[in-house]
Amino acid sequence: MERIPILKMGKCLLVTIQVDLQDQVALQLQDDLSATIESTGATGVLIDISALEIVDSFIGRMLASISGIASVLDATTVVVGMQPAVAITLVELGLSLDGVRTALNVERGMAMLRLRDGEGDHDLVD
Amino acid sequence: MERIPILKMGKCLLVTIQVDLQDQVALQLQDDLSATIESTGATGVLIDISALEIVDSFIGRMLASISGIASVLDATTVVVGMQPAVAITLVELGLSLDGVRTALNVERGMAMLRLRDGEGDHDLVD
Repeated sequence: MERIPILKMGKCLLVTIQVDLQDQVALQLQDDLSATIESTGATGVLIDISALEIVDSFIGRMLASISGIASVLDATTVVVGMQPAVAITLVELGLSLDGVRTALNVERGMAMLRLRDGEGDHDLVD
Repeated sequence: MERIPILKMGKCLLVTIQVDLQDQVALQLQDDLSATIESTGATGVLIDISALEIVDSFIGRMLASISGIASVLDATTVVVGMQPAVAITLVELGLSLDGVRTALNVERGMAMLRLRDGEGDHDLVD
């Protein structure tokens, strides 16, 4: 079974979604992420979906679910890299990704997480 | 055709390889990476292979090739996250990944790139 790697960068975890998310892969990702947040004490999770050309209601629910789990574990989730066409389709379909924060790209997502941690005094990715 | 996303983080580009690299995907990645190095002026490329359970001679050549191209464009490539079993197999097969730098994980890879840029005075991912 495929497993989506979780990269640790400082206090952030970075997940790049490149494959079609089937149920098992999505559940595995939820398990892995929550375990990694617990073991590393990460305070932020960045999920890059720039490779996804379709975000349907299943993926939307999955993102909301991950965001909810991370939030309970005191980590903020930011979804980054959404393609413009995906954003258009989401709005047209009325899928609003409730409770999921988004940012244009990884750098802006990191900046958002940094602000949340009150670490505006030094640059993480400069 | 699948495309592997390239994430920009400061002066680094990050590529996470999760799928089996077939010829077309590998060639596309080379093209995309060189174009992105040129357009962003990135000085470092991190290639995460923690999801790969097999690194054969094709992937080895591809990594060496990417590293060579990036080097000509004045960017340093570091391959990170190799699984222990993969490292063992590589050595047993006599594949030495000539010209390819490696690091244990993304954080160490970033530290290596930072040293190369002489930016040891502040922390990129702390």
